[in-house]
Amino acid sequence: MEPLLRPIKRALISVSDKEGIVEFAKELEKRNVEILSTGGTAKLLTEKGIKVIEVSDYTKFPEMMNGRVKTLHPKIHGGILGRRGIDEDVMNEHDIKPIDLVVVNLYPFVKTVSDPNCPLEKAIENIDIGGPTMVRAAAKNNRDVAIVVRASDYARVLSEMDQNNGSLTWATRFDLAIAAYEHTAAYDSAIANYFGTKVPDYGITDGTQSTLPRTLNLNYTKLQSMRYGENPHQKAAFYADIDAHDAGISTAKQIQGKELSYNNIADTDAAIECVRQFEEPCCVIVKHANPCGVALGKNLTEAYEDAFNCDSESAFGGIIAFNKELDGTTAKAIVDRQFCEVIVAPSVTEEAKAEVARKKNIRLLETGELGQAKPRYDFKRVNGGLLVQEADLEVVNKENLKVVTKRAPTDEEMDELLFAWKVCKFTKSNAIVYTNHKKTLGIGCGQTSRVFSARIACLRAEDAKLSLEGAALASDAFFPFRDGVDAAAASGIKCIIQPGGSIRDQEVIDAADEHGIAMVFTGMRHFRH
Amino acid sequence: MEPLLRPIKRALISVSDKEGIVEFAKELEKRNVEILSTGGTAKLLTEKGIKVIEVSDYTKFPEMMNGRVKTLHPKIHGGILGRRGIDEDVMNEHDIKPIDLVVVNLYPFVKTVSDPNCPLEKAIENIDIGGPTMVRAAAKNNRDVAIVVRASDYARVLSEMDQNNGSLTWATRFDLAIAAYEHTAAYDSAIANYFGTKVPDYGITDGTQSTLPRTLNLNYTKLQSMRYGENPHQKAAFYADIDAHDAGISTAKQIQGKELSYNNIADTDAAIECVRQFEEPCCVIVKHANPCGVALGKNLTEAYEDAFNCDSESAFGGIIAFNKELDGTTAKAIVDRQFCEVIVAPSVTEEAKAEVARKKNIRLLETGELGQAKPRYDFKRVNGGLLVQEADLEVVNKENLKVVTKRAPTDEEMDELLFAWKVCKFTKSNAIVYTNHKKTLGIGCGQTSRVFSARIACLRAEDAKLSLEGAALASDAFFPFRDGVDAAAASGIKCIIQPGGSIRDQEVIDAADEHGIAMVFTGMRHFRH
Repeated sequence: MEPLLRPIKRALISVSDKEGIVEFAKELEKRNVEILSTGGTAKLLTEKGIKVIEVSDYTKFPEMMNGRVKTLHPKIHGGILGRRGIDEDVMNEHDIKPIDLVVVNLYPFVKTVSDPNCPLEKAIENIDIGGPTMVRAAAKNNRDVAIVVRASDYARVLSEMDQNNGSLTWATRFDLAIAAYEHTAAYDSAIANYFGTKVPDYGITDGTQSTLPRTLNLNYTKLQSMRYGENPHQKAAFYADIDAHDAGISTAKQIQGKELSYNNIADTDAAIECVRQFEEPCCVIVKHANPCGVALGKNLTEAYEDAFNCDSESAFGGIIAFNKELDGTTAKAIVDRQFCEVIVAPSVTEEAKAEVARKKNIRLLETGELGQAKPRYDFKRVNGGLLVQEADLEVVNKENLKVVTKRAPTDEEMDELLFAWKVCKFTKSNAIVYTNHKKTLGIGCGQTSRVFSARIACLRAEDAKLSLEGAALASDAFFPFRDGVDAAAASGIKCIIQPGGSIRDQEVIDAADEHGIAMVFTGMRHFRH
Repeated sequence: MEPLLRPIKRALISVSDKEGIVEFAKELEKRNVEILSTGGTAKLLTEKGIKVIEVSDYTKFPEMMNGRVKTLHPKIHGGILGRRGIDEDVMNEHDIKPIDLVVVNLYPFVKTVSDPNCPLEKAIENIDIGGPTMVRAAAKNNRDVAIVVRASDYARVLSEMDQNNGSLTWATRFDLAIAAYEHTAAYDSAIANYFGTKVPDYGITDGTQSTLPRTLNLNYTKLQSMRYGENPHQKAAFYADIDAHDAGISTAKQIQGKELSYNNIADTDAAIECVRQFEEPCCVIVKHANPCGVALGKNLTEAYEDAFNCDSESAFGGIIAFNKELDGTTAKAIVDRQFCEVIVAPSVTEEAKAEVARKKNIRLLETGELGQAKPRYDFKRVNGGLLVQEADLEVVNKENLKVVTKRAPTDEEMDELLFAWKVCKFTKSNAIVYTNHKKTLGIGCGQTSRVFSARIACLRAEDAKLSLEGAALASDAFFPFRDGVDAAAASGIKCIIQPGGSIRDQEVIDAADEHGIAMVFTGMRHFRH
């Protein structure tokens, strides 16, 4: 890109968010930049002693219709869009002065409609028309004109002007221009999404009106370019929601280790979201998108030991997540024993950092306090489309459970069942999870039939030499037949948690009663694919 | 919404895509609508005998800067944004006439940049400034003004005018307004995505420049509102890419049956994408996101029988996909034998339709000729972000394979290995697939360790009473140790296909040689989670 230095002699400033604008305008004035401005911005700058020319004085056309028409004038847009070296004659003819810098941000549409009681009129009045036009026009003419939409760019503009005798380079103007289109894309996306729930769907004739908009417009900011994706021949990148704020994989801070890979990020997300469900000290080990060991303990070391012992083979090279501050003892136990890709916790003590530092490649992440996950949409990509759903954030508690067997679970069994259920929720379907003493014994995941998941969960427990005698069983969906319960009983299972809802529920309940198994229904399924 | 009928007396027409515009303008003229227009549109309408007022004659400001500034004038935007019943005085004062209908579509940015040799200047010149401003202004003032951005809405506007003495209702204007913001959101999204690959990433300091843009802006159109998502407590909808065209789940035509559920769509997508890989008649049965039976045959009936027999338990309630026209015999075989959720094929004969019609609930879909899948991005949602990668569309052929054992596969074994490999590509990781005679014998999917996947694939074959003697084995990633090969040999496996690339490859090759197994390396991994 050629340098194409262009001096900044005249700026148009019109901002809704006034953060930093007075200081910026003062600095521009010091550098002999003439300032055009409108309405509230002009008033503020004038109050602060900055000399501004009102746009209406310049255009000789008044601001009208409560500010709906202010800057939509050829003297403004000719000044922004005029091509230097080409359009001077026509500009002179119509007394149009070149505008070199446009500083604009938009009416706060997103903030306005975030109030659930916002009336339609107010939402509409907060759709900016003049602002996006100036932003887009200046961005189009980036060869000659600079556009700034973010207060965070003010310092950068001043510093580059100082390095170049009051000019900016094309590279900077181009970069700012793309940021401008990113801004207007997100702005109109928010408008379309908001109003898109208030109009009928295209071509959907069943009269249903859903909470999901007619078109879905999503905007993401790149966090990380990657060497590759799920496999080395796939190019990839990691993007964050433009408003990402939930403590989790997208906001975590990396303390040490290699860059996270695509699969690391996916698995670490699964591990964090699983571990955040628990109050007591918990360790979750994830491999290939599934938990391979989950345990609670009186401290993290105990939880880690038990999670590891559930399936030590799979734990090798896994992702290890905790819900409490990682201490030195636990960190040492991991590092001394096993290879792992990622360790993640809300916080990490200095001792733990030092222990992990012994293995330079381990990626160590801090998320901050996890708290409850906030509502969001989940997506599943299919060829040519996107399945969109509310994320599965609900989970039953003791009060929601329905005891369906003659024998009710003891208090201890009830706690165990809820533990097993939460693990099961994060296991790929069909999922069967056996637990006892708040640790997983066998996890059957990702199978095409439920009874086979139950069988491999058994095999896993056998491999790990963990007895299922007296254990709890969780199933992410209902048992279609009694065979699953019969098999569970044969393995020593004493209590079962499952959604219920099969047409053969009675047959399944009878089987449980025959074996003296206590069974509860959740009424809520947790398929996860 | 109140009716708020507003008569259409004056229209502004300025379109880049001129489809249908002459006819529409003629009809408006017949209804005594005064027409304002610009540049090419004005010229065309005048040539066709339609009376138009040039915008520059109306504003008394010439079109300038090669059309960069035409409509950005308060007489135009006051006429669009003026609130009826409020702003009449100021409009009269400045001789601003109300514009009741705006018909605008935008410079073809997407089409322009779809040419990979499009120079930067041309791309920039195809960013429309005046057009989006009129579109957004008219949409904002939807209480009084109608905006039309799609030729497909022309007829609807005329018909509603005829029903209401030349007026439109607010409901229609509101609907059209949202379509307008959907249009501008997608327009600026395309601009941001295009240029977003040509500027440095925010905060990414390693100097890498990827093919993925700095911000990712995605636009989807709702195809279907759903009763629920992956689970009944999750609200959901199915969206299509705004340019969805590939034969697949998003473009398939439903011939009969209940509405597709969230899980149906996800599984049907997996089934279609798997079956499209094969040239010979093929049947793929999918359950819970994994193939549970895949077979080639001399015809679809044979392919279906073999696919079913691989795991008849899982096939119950599955998704059945074919890559050739579904015939009556095959349809009958399915309907007579089993319950299934979806049957999908490129086309369906009348006989087959009649057979399936016997079971009203079965969803029967036609995709049209499948052909090769086209490049697209795949997404994996994580909390607060999105993992984005090129879809995994590559697959090795015979020429890419490297024989690493003393014994090379026979031609027949080579064909079998490639069949097994393609099935393995569509099986969730860790994936191990055993096949013989172009049918799956056992599929090990979704496990946290490779050796366990191999073990459960064996169990599956045993359950189905299918011998592994002489069979082929495919593994989606390399064998980390020789134990997998030893176990395979013990089961009777005669040839293996896998990516290779382990530091212990030589140990694995030696094991294969000891057992007389022929092994090939693909050099390409296919993790799928």
